[in-house]
Amino acid sequence: MKNNHRILAVGSMAFDSIQTLSGKAEHVLGGSVNYFSAVASHFTEVSVIGVVGQDFPKSHLDWMSGRGIDISGVEIVEGKTFHWVGEYDNYMNEAKTLSTALNVFEHFSPKLNDIHKEASVIFLANIDPVLQKSVLDQANNHRFVACDSMNFWIAGKRNELLETLKQVDLLSINEGEAYLLSEQKNLIQAANTIRDMGPSTVVIKRGEYGAAVFGPKGAFVIPAFLVPNVIDPTGAGDTFAGGMIGYLARNGVDRDLAKSDPEGWDRMLRRAALSGCVSASFTVEDFSLHRLIRLEDGEIANREKQLIKMINIPG
Amino acid sequence: MKNNHRILAVGSMAFDSIQTLSGKAEHVLGGSVNYFSAVASHFTEVSVIGVVGQDFPKSHLDWMSGRGIDISGVEIVEGKTFHWVGEYDNYMNEAKTLSTALNVFEHFSPKLNDIHKEASVIFLANIDPVLQKSVLDQANNHRFVACDSMNFWIAGKRNELLETLKQVDLLSINEGEAYLLSEQKNLIQAANTIRDMGPSTVVIKRGEYGAAVFGPKGAFVIPAFLVPNVIDPTGAGDTFAGGMIGYLARNGVDRDLAKSDPEGWDRMLRRAALSGCVSASFTVEDFSLHRLIRLEDGEIANREKQLIKMINIPG
Repeated sequence: MKNNHRILAVGSMAFDSIQTLSGKAEHVLGGSVNYFSAVASHFTEVSVIGVVGQDFPKSHLDWMSGRGIDISGVEIVEGKTFHWVGEYDNYMNEAKTLSTALNVFEHFSPKLNDIHKEASVIFLANIDPVLQKSVLDQANNHRFVACDSMNFWIAGKRNELLETLKQVDLLSINEGEAYLLSEQKNLIQAANTIRDMGPSTVVIKRGEYGAAVFGPKGAFVIPAFLVPNVIDPTGAGDTFAGGMIGYLARNGVDRDLAKSDPEGWDRMLRRAALSGCVSASFTVEDFSLHRLIRLEDGEIANREKQLIKMINIPG
Repeated sequence: MKNNHRILAVGSMAFDSIQTLSGKAEHVLGGSVNYFSAVASHFTEVSVIGVVGQDFPKSHLDWMSGRGIDISGVEIVEGKTFHWVGEYDNYMNEAKTLSTALNVFEHFSPKLNDIHKEASVIFLANIDPVLQKSVLDQANNHRFVACDSMNFWIAGKRNELLETLKQVDLLSINEGEAYLLSEQKNLIQAANTIRDMGPSTVVIKRGEYGAAVFGPKGAFVIPAFLVPNVIDPTGAGDTFAGGMIGYLARNGVDRDLAKSDPEGWDRMLRRAALSGCVSASFTVEDFSLHRLIRLEDGEIANREKQLIKMINIPG
């Protein structure tokens, strides 16, 4: 029954060119489902749906397969892979997009095969909400839907996003996006407004400060692990989701839990957010997927213990 | 021996005129030691040194006395009280100073009387580092020195501040100030650099995100209490210090603890930071000292329990 814990992740596979305070990386591997699956595959079985051009390195697809990631949903089509060029501000909290070449990603249209349709958890990375909904329409065995989005869709395809959110159980977005989506100016009020749109759980990502999570039992807050040398924040949000959703999937997440066992769900969410924070903390230690490619299971467990210690306050 | 837990707090007493997202307050009570003592007096005995003009309301001095705050060090001189005019950005994380009228504060020169000289803990609020040092030079029985500062002094009187810091045990500053003072771009590296300047403990205030504390046993992070309706962040940092230093003083803080019992000191610091976060969370619920004036001891203890619950992550 291991298949019951499978995550289907749908999103971008990309090249990134990035300038941070620590240096520059040109045309390196990136994209939301690359980041997400590199981490989530430490927790459970993962299938990926994405599209790449003929320039995408076969060696990375081999690495994914080697980690047990099902890449039967990765289409390789004629043309170039999606390319994002960005840079970070002084304290590396905000990325500025310098250019975006969608390339083959422009005509991305996720198609689910039989393995995908049996996945119990679906992670909709930050893509057009119309495509996100088409994934849910094709799936038929999922017990939990997690979703990401961004300003571009919140402002540009608001109605379509609201339609998708009706079927989402957990929305993971950053603070600015939460304010934009909710049209509120306070975090609690923003989360409550978004919970009324559909998701019973709202995860607000706060960059280097960690995350605040709002569920049926109220809110909890988890700080990010303090990293002595942040090289590149790209992918931190996607790997936060990878650790969090990975933990939830491995532990048999089901949307009914929020109603049938809110206390248990709250404990599970807190523990999952710990895995999310720790996963993100590895990502930022190097450019691209470099740190994640050499990440071992034991390192995650070890840093989870360190983070628990770092945030422990005696009562 | 109750006197051994006395805090001597030296800093500004002021009027503030403030514009926030929630509205406007004109010429209301403010100033670092007003905020600090309103909270610290819930934890231990407090003496205040400050200067006000003849326009400062006697009713507030009476309120301070009524709370047991020793105001023998508050000078009332001819002229007007210090007046700060400021406004906050969209999400109320950063204050912008619109104007500052120092008035009687321009000639502030703290003089310690016999009660002050017996205080075991000294809190040097954000004033000229030369004045901060003059306070320490006059004191003779203190076991612990906590200090605040700001960009204005870090940039304008760097050498004088470095001189003061040699005698400081705990420095409490915000993130931007920590980067400016340390000339580093990473929080851990910034704190380590500052610890080398003198303070064995560095508290980095992170606004609505809480605080990171660096001591002899390493770092811990505490998130701020989520407040459903933030009215005015003014004074949050000073009341964070009020709760934190108040807790430390009540529990007999001594600079030797950092060396003689680093584990005990670490536990004490974590517990103190909890009191700091909770104290700040009340401050922001209303303009000026309004919420603090109606604050009861039981409310602090109660919210500490709530915050412990809000940040609990099962191991």
